[in-house]
Amino acid sequence: MLYSKLFGKTSKNITIDADSINAKLLSQAGFIQKQMSGVYNYLPLGLRVLKKIQQIIRQEMDAIGGQEILMPALSQEESWITTKRHHMDVLFHLQSQAGNSLVLNPTHEEVITPLVKKYTLSYKDLPVLLYQIQDKFRDEPRAKSGLLRGREFNMKDLYSFHQNVKDLDSFYQTVQKAYFKIFSRLDLSQTVLTFASGGSFSQYSHEFQTISSTGEDTIYYCSKCKIAVNKEIISQQSSCPQCGHSKLEPKKSIEIANIFKLGDKFSSAFDFFYQDKQGQKHPIIMGCYGIGPSRIMGAIAETSHDKNGLIWPASVAPYQVHLIGIDLFDTDTKKQTNDLYQKLLDANIEVLYDDRPQVSAGAKFTDADLIGLPLRLLVSQKSLKQGGAELKYRHSSQINILPFQEILAKIK
Amino acid sequence: MLYSKLFGKTSKNITIDADSINAKLLSQAGFIQKQMSGVYNYLPLGLRVLKKIQQIIRQEMDAIGGQEILMPALSQEESWITTKRHHMDVLFHLQSQAGNSLVLNPTHEEVITPLVKKYTLSYKDLPVLLYQIQDKFRDEPRAKSGLLRGREFNMKDLYSFHQNVKDLDSFYQTVQKAYFKIFSRLDLSQTVLTFASGGSFSQYSHEFQTISSTGEDTIYYCSKCKIAVNKEIISQQSSCPQCGHSKLEPKKSIEIANIFKLGDKFSSAFDFFYQDKQGQKHPIIMGCYGIGPSRIMGAIAETSHDKNGLIWPASVAPYQVHLIGIDLFDTDTKKQTNDLYQKLLDANIEVLYDDRPQVSAGAKFTDADLIGLPLRLLVSQKSLKQGGAELKYRHSSQINILPFQEILAKIK
Repeated sequence: MLYSKLFGKTSKNITIDADSINAKLLSQAGFIQKQMSGVYNYLPLGLRVLKKIQQIIRQEMDAIGGQEILMPALSQEESWITTKRHHMDVLFHLQSQAGNSLVLNPTHEEVITPLVKKYTLSYKDLPVLLYQIQDKFRDEPRAKSGLLRGREFNMKDLYSFHQNVKDLDSFYQTVQKAYFKIFSRLDLSQTVLTFASGGSFSQYSHEFQTISSTGEDTIYYCSKCKIAVNKEIISQQSSCPQCGHSKLEPKKSIEIANIFKLGDKFSSAFDFFYQDKQGQKHPIIMGCYGIGPSRIMGAIAETSHDKNGLIWPASVAPYQVHLIGIDLFDTDTKKQTNDLYQKLLDANIEVLYDDRPQVSAGAKFTDADLIGLPLRLLVSQKSLKQGGAELKYRHSSQINILPFQEILAKIK
Repeated sequence: MLYSKLFGKTSKNITIDADSINAKLLSQAGFIQKQMSGVYNYLPLGLRVLKKIQQIIRQEMDAIGGQEILMPALSQEESWITTKRHHMDVLFHLQSQAGNSLVLNPTHEEVITPLVKKYTLSYKDLPVLLYQIQDKFRDEPRAKSGLLRGREFNMKDLYSFHQNVKDLDSFYQTVQKAYFKIFSRLDLSQTVLTFASGGSFSQYSHEFQTISSTGEDTIYYCSKCKIAVNKEIISQQSSCPQCGHSKLEPKKSIEIANIFKLGDKFSSAFDFFYQDKQGQKHPIIMGCYGIGPSRIMGAIAETSHDKNGLIWPASVAPYQVHLIGIDLFDTDTKKQTNDLYQKLLDANIEVLYDDRPQVSAGAKFTDADLIGLPLRLLVSQKSLKQGGAELKYRHSSQINILPFQEILAKIK
């Protein structure tokens, strides 16, 4: 991609709307643009990151047998009356011309439970493991943390339907492992399994909290077990729920995912049973498993940056290489830089090429730091004299000059 | 994919909600499931089709220089007051807890115009060509045509921003060509450029109407120019707008896309100007270009089926091959069918494998016809004795028996 053509260039001025580090950096670097409180536009760079996060999550959900579907944003209010959740204060309510009372879904138990019921009759149809990657809506009175707390935000929500609690428990563990694979691929390894309150069916639910000095949440961490409890739990018990005796240490954090055992709460509300081998009716046992791609994008920005800008992990960087052309007024330099760009493209490497002729080297470096791609290549009259291009990783200050061929071999 | 595990199996009973051929076939075959009037769930098969349609559109939009972004579903009502469109009867209105008046966007001029304004100062920044693939909302009082007229539906909308009318006109032609490439890749070649009323800025806008005996629209076709006019235009002129003398012939059709020259209608409302080389201010000239992936899925179902079920073009079929295992009680037959499945997967061919042990051959054929994948492979004790698998295309009645190796070579 030619940076001269890219929509959404860097701007030091787009800070007025920035209510958090992630909103500030992502807006300045041209990844997102605020529409209103808690609602964002994704510009080309930001959408590339969001899609890569979604794709990593999709792969890990497929790997544990999840099947992808897509449910609507709208549902009938009557489904929420059925589950007695129509008074939830984050629900956006609408009225249609035809006189229907509608809801903008903040979660999808009210949609998926009757949907799965239509296709599930006997134990042979179970388990059902369905997920979607879809936009949700919450009427947050104070959305003020950039992508961390949205009124419209992207979610992966998986729902599982089982014959019994044992099957649910086993799948619940499977999802936990898949989530940690996802966090590892996203370089969010400072993410901690956190015990949260479980509702009527289960003693605990679990959150996945990324430790971050700028986090809005506080978790209480057991350094022995490497798990934590959230605020609700610490008010009931001050010791680790796993080892029982460790002292728990408070840490600031960002919640990026959560999982719940729902039991038969929703299946019972929708009169959803299955027949076993003997033809006997049993309630369906459900679990739900959320993870927020847009929130993860915000969490990466919060936890992976320095004073100059963003530092993207290679797995979700919008492009892998930031190619910076200097001295492009010189015909030979321009030709050689264009050639390197073409060679990188031919090798299927994602490149953002700063080809702007009238921008200073210093301004280009500042932009590259702000945008935060993993690898920077700089071609100038000087670098060419020295035999090639300057190569520098975003997270390091070391610069090497290498011939083009060596660079290509290294990147591949 | 093993059909025994697939969520959303065929059902002859799921017809109660079917308000149209596309809704009936797509519901029975397990592609979609109605949530309420004009609002659908996409099951795994349906979501695969939708994504393939989106990907074809995305490729052709990228090929003409479009950059993909993602705008929100929510916007402030005040933006719609600015453009005097807040009384449009298809607008869904919402009120937030914090007291904001919000709108669920049925189109995005009110969002993209102020967004692009933030990044566009001079003629050097133009043209700007942005598109998104996103879900839209329209409060249709009578949504009753399956995926053809939704209250929540998927759209690709591209918006172009130019220095002058000449640049707009040229890009408008480019999009027309790109759209016909898309329709050709989707096997919707019976789609006709249709002149529609143009509003205050331009004499005509254009629709893309797919001729279909079940269509809700009527177009008036010039067999000489192979273009048409819509109902609005025929009331003003009964001759072809292109050749001026042909008699126009009425045909039923489905509108799957449309393009408009907007001129400065929206840019002026948002006070969006650019500076030319001399520093003089000029209004930005805009165009918008819609195409509906979910509606296209419905249009393919309406126009490509027979009495037994759907007939998917290979470009958007959820899987390429329907592998049907017969006599799976026999160990050798089962092993050989499983082997063929694995070989197809290893060759990166998308296969739906009907591995159900207790379903009759006849029922499996009926399901395969209903689902409508392009190619069917059948393995049975008989076919193995005859040297391989039966190969049959969905659109033909001819059956050939071929050795596995030959089949693999043929499919690749």
